[in-house]
Amino acid sequence: MGLNSNRVEDFSSHTGNTTVTTVKVSTEIPPEAATMEIHKVCMPPKKTTLQKLKHRVSDIFFPDDPLHGFKNQTWCKKLVLGVKSFFPICQWGLEYSPQLFRSDIISGLTIASLAIPQGISYAKLANLPPIVGLWSSRHLAVGPVSIASLVMGTMLRGSVSPTDEPILYLQLAFTATFFAGVFHASLGLLRLGFVIDFLSKATLLGFMAGAAVIVSLQQLKGLLGIVHFTNKMQIIPVLTSVLEHKHEWSWQTIVMGFGFLFFMLAARHISMKKPKLFWVSAAAPLTSVILSTILVFCIRSKAHGISHIGHLQKGLNPPSLNMLYFNGQHLALAIKTGIVTGILSLTEGIAVGRTFASLKNYQVDGNKEMIAIGLMNMAGSCTSCYVTTGSFSRSAVNYNAGAQTAVSNIVLASAVLVTLLFLMPLFYYTPNFILAAIIITAVVGLIDYQGAYKLWKVDKLDFLACISSFFGVLFISVPLGLAIAVGVSVFKILLHVTRPNTVVLGNIPRTQIYQNLHRYKEASRVPSFLILAVESPIYFANTTYLQERMLRWIREEEDWITENHGSTLKCIIIDMTAVTATDTSGIDMLCELRKMLEKRSLQLVLVNPVGSVMEKLHHSETLVTFGTSSVYLTVGEAVGDISASWKPQP
Amino acid sequence: MGLNSNRVEDFSSHTGNTTVTTVKVSTEIPPEAATMEIHKVCMPPKKTTLQKLKHRVSDIFFPDDPLHGFKNQTWCKKLVLGVKSFFPICQWGLEYSPQLFRSDIISGLTIASLAIPQGISYAKLANLPPIVGLWSSRHLAVGPVSIASLVMGTMLRGSVSPTDEPILYLQLAFTATFFAGVFHASLGLLRLGFVIDFLSKATLLGFMAGAAVIVSLQQLKGLLGIVHFTNKMQIIPVLTSVLEHKHEWSWQTIVMGFGFLFFMLAARHISMKKPKLFWVSAAAPLTSVILSTILVFCIRSKAHGISHIGHLQKGLNPPSLNMLYFNGQHLALAIKTGIVTGILSLTEGIAVGRTFASLKNYQVDGNKEMIAIGLMNMAGSCTSCYVTTGSFSRSAVNYNAGAQTAVSNIVLASAVLVTLLFLMPLFYYTPNFILAAIIITAVVGLIDYQGAYKLWKVDKLDFLACISSFFGVLFISVPLGLAIAVGVSVFKILLHVTRPNTVVLGNIPRTQIYQNLHRYKEASRVPSFLILAVESPIYFANTTYLQERMLRWIREEEDWITENHGSTLKCIIIDMTAVTATDTSGIDMLCELRKMLEKRSLQLVLVNPVGSVMEKLHHSETLVTFGTSSVYLTVGEAVGDISASWKPQP
Repeated sequence: MGLNSNRVEDFSSHTGNTTVTTVKVSTEIPPEAATMEIHKVCMPPKKTTLQKLKHRVSDIFFPDDPLHGFKNQTWCKKLVLGVKSFFPICQWGLEYSPQLFRSDIISGLTIASLAIPQGISYAKLANLPPIVGLWSSRHLAVGPVSIASLVMGTMLRGSVSPTDEPILYLQLAFTATFFAGVFHASLGLLRLGFVIDFLSKATLLGFMAGAAVIVSLQQLKGLLGIVHFTNKMQIIPVLTSVLEHKHEWSWQTIVMGFGFLFFMLAARHISMKKPKLFWVSAAAPLTSVILSTILVFCIRSKAHGISHIGHLQKGLNPPSLNMLYFNGQHLALAIKTGIVTGILSLTEGIAVGRTFASLKNYQVDGNKEMIAIGLMNMAGSCTSCYVTTGSFSRSAVNYNAGAQTAVSNIVLASAVLVTLLFLMPLFYYTPNFILAAIIITAVVGLIDYQGAYKLWKVDKLDFLACISSFFGVLFISVPLGLAIAVGVSVFKILLHVTRPNTVVLGNIPRTQIYQNLHRYKEASRVPSFLILAVESPIYFANTTYLQERMLRWIREEEDWITENHGSTLKCIIIDMTAVTATDTSGIDMLCELRKMLEKRSLQLVLVNPVGSVMEKLHHSETLVTFGTSSVYLTVGEAVGDISASWKPQP
Repeated sequence: MGLNSNRVEDFSSHTGNTTVTTVKVSTEIPPEAATMEIHKVCMPPKKTTLQKLKHRVSDIFFPDDPLHGFKNQTWCKKLVLGVKSFFPICQWGLEYSPQLFRSDIISGLTIASLAIPQGISYAKLANLPPIVGLWSSRHLAVGPVSIASLVMGTMLRGSVSPTDEPILYLQLAFTATFFAGVFHASLGLLRLGFVIDFLSKATLLGFMAGAAVIVSLQQLKGLLGIVHFTNKMQIIPVLTSVLEHKHEWSWQTIVMGFGFLFFMLAARHISMKKPKLFWVSAAAPLTSVILSTILVFCIRSKAHGISHIGHLQKGLNPPSLNMLYFNGQHLALAIKTGIVTGILSLTEGIAVGRTFASLKNYQVDGNKEMIAIGLMNMAGSCTSCYVTTGSFSRSAVNYNAGAQTAVSNIVLASAVLVTLLFLMPLFYYTPNFILAAIIITAVVGLIDYQGAYKLWKVDKLDFLACISSFFGVLFISVPLGLAIAVGVSVFKILLHVTRPNTVVLGNIPRTQIYQNLHRYKEASRVPSFLILAVESPIYFANTTYLQERMLRWIREEEDWITENHGSTLKCIIIDMTAVTATDTSGIDMLCELRKMLEKRSLQLVLVNPVGSVMEKLHHSETLVTFGTSSVYLTVGEAVGDISASWKPQP
């Protein structure tokens, strides 16, 4: 297919009178037109309101037809399928082999070496005791994620200090986790998974990058060895805080911190270049933790400036049902935090699921996924875990390490278990700067400047959405940044609906094809006709605009005819193919337009209205007032039939 | 055009396997297909980002090309046109004649007889001194309107009592008027008139009806002679208040009140049946005021229960610039009230303008209109007027009475002037029940139950928007009802975007027309092809849904083929004619879908992408990965070319 992208022509040329004369006009009506068969426009099959409602509801809530596998099966088969879909182990358990077990063990241990340092680091991000991060990591292939941790920490810290009231803070964190779970599960149960779609990829790109910058800047506390640091999240107070506490900077911390950061970034870079070396980036955090801990242990008497984790609790998750907090003044805060972190973790979880599903070519049921994440978080909140979801870095390692079944998660869980029970005292001398470096390494991948450049190249409005959410997060706050992101996305949709495109069509010679006059050079005007295509539903939000715009097209066409001595305009054809819906305002507009044109002796003809539009035209009795010869199936048939009807006249 | 509306067929039949077999399959490819010419899909003419931005901005803000009259004129002519457009008197002043003057006098006096009682009544609705209503009526063809008056009264009364702090109340009313004017003028200057379009006709229908019910119920105070009445606006407190104060009901008031109400409603009915008798309804209020005032004057010693207006101030509008209130605790309230009443009055004003413009076949420039209304209200607030706008009842009388030029407004203004200067004492005995009756007569026309029935018949979602705004106003509050109305309207747009329609196309025998298989009985499947039409832009908000839905269509098609031993599916054609826009998420979805289908040995072909979609496909280099033979201009050409390419193979 050839792209004539070298042609330079102003496609709004029709609006200025000077360049219009470049458009060709065919001297007569297309040849086939006169002899052709005329087809009727059908009404869609009749359905009652109830049937329509049922159809619509099933389309809104069950687009993927989740039970299709169960159709036309015997009862016995249905039962087996049902059990398999609830307990996937029945599916793969039968085919399990030592080979599979070997790859699962390897991948499980690889992820554990990534998950243990990350779990501790992310818990610090949310101001929670590090062990909570590990407790949370015991869950399956998922784990706490950086952005949600950060947001939870910031939102809760706004009202409750984690150092002054550690118990209340922990209670609120578990309660927020519980509500995040309730939010996930209810979205899933109500099959409202599509609300997540309103966070477009473009806005998420900006949002994630902004959050990553904030998270990284906050890690300067650990990397520079600063003791007193701001609680705020915006870029300005964070940078001010960094510069104000210059006297607290410790050169030993800085040297070692940046050294290990560089080491991990390099490991990450190697793994990205050669996916086979995935274990380099997976093992780097654990290696760094071990090396730095030994280093700090050795120089512990000389360098007092280096802060380390200190004493860690040991043991399994205690039940925390009694710590959920369902009344009192902070309940609203807990619910709000739960919903915001719920949205954030869900977005990442679903995105992870989809990415890997498309790599392995299977489909993810977003709603089922949400119910699972929701139940997990609700159960988690009762066993000392905080918000968890599918994590990108972990799933990527899981995938590259060749994990085959859920057994790799059992291996991961066992490794975390052993750590919790026996290895916690070893982390006593682990320095805080290494946790900071681990977090920075994890989030730096979220800054996707190449993606942003691609957005700029392809769609300027998407780029705008991206940078506004980026700066919203950086300069205002995370929840507001999220709100701005959604606002910009919705505004984009509304802008397209309020100001739809209208184009003038012309005939491509020797065919029945009618195309945009200003895009297809070979297309030519049909004398006495003005063929307009409306490229959007006709709604209350754009009726005024469309009416004005169409009258302006007619006015410009008449001006052009006067100037070029063309044949008088007699008929306006509106190609409704792309008018995929309408409402009462739209119908009223069409009727009004018809009346106005009738006063100017112009005929108005509609072409190819879609089913729902046709129904509405019928119910509003517009078809009766328009007359039977005002709706055609194709532009070609309309032109042929109408011009044939003119012939007998002088 | 014949409507086969008697055919009963479930058009979701394809989703169930049982009814699918009714669909015909043509045994071979349409005849013309093999020999046809293949047309290229063109790129739109190249434009720089700046050119595109300019084009887009001019389309968003200047759709009507406001300066088109000035194009291609000499400088001298341009000047004359400019003066004429700023001072319309230059236009009609030259052609003015005694005949025109006569009709202007008649219509001016007719409106005055309607405007004076209405002005007094509406001011009472806003708890303002009656004279403020008359002062406000001196302005041109416009006047205070009932809903805006009511809302202003309720919102201000929430914080300030008009009886305890009359001066502050008046100050706030003028300040709110000032801000309403600022709001109007700035919307107009920024050419943002289209925000008003988001109040769809359907939601306004419900909103107006709800407000009319509330206004009418509140008039029961006057009609029943109740002294102590609630300040609230919701239906429940109002009705409770009516029933709780049964002991205050006065039978004389009730008899006379309902008598005059019946008289005015009858007059209204007559005028509506016979537009020539317009003067009956126009004169009825003044007649009623005169008759009832005389009546109350005569029986003043016997019936103390009948409340009347009492002493009225006399004289012209005093300047009220010094009464504007720009600081202090109530400023926020004044701004809020100003904006809400501004939106309300604007909606009515623009609607009035459009209705009469379409009757007289000229176009209204909404933005110019807004600047005019805004300046008028800003000036009004400095001369003791409150929110005014084009009023429906008055404009209808103006139109029917045959007003020709602005001179009829001068006549109206003179009549009001005379009333203000000399006739005010005559209103001393005018009973309050007559004002209530005038208001009810004016608002009862806003309850358009036939319109609501038509909405139900044509568009169920429009009806839902209508009744939700109706009940929102009745049971919650006017501003919230308005917010609900906008919310429902926007939700409707978003719902359509998130869950767009997809249809399977079939070929209509002996043509190149491809239409919905389930709507056109004559259409038949093309073997080895699945032709899908997407009826919406492909956006971030619907990519997930569309991908799932398309994969489901493919799965169902394959199931059908297995069952019916059809020829294997080889190619999926997506008809993009109605995909009027896309974004980066949409492009990514298409690429991903192509990859998934490739793994299943299915070819993916796009047909007729519109200009902007084609551009994005090009910039994202999707066209390169898709290959040159994956984009066709028409479905027919795609089917012909692809099936021809299969022939040499076994």
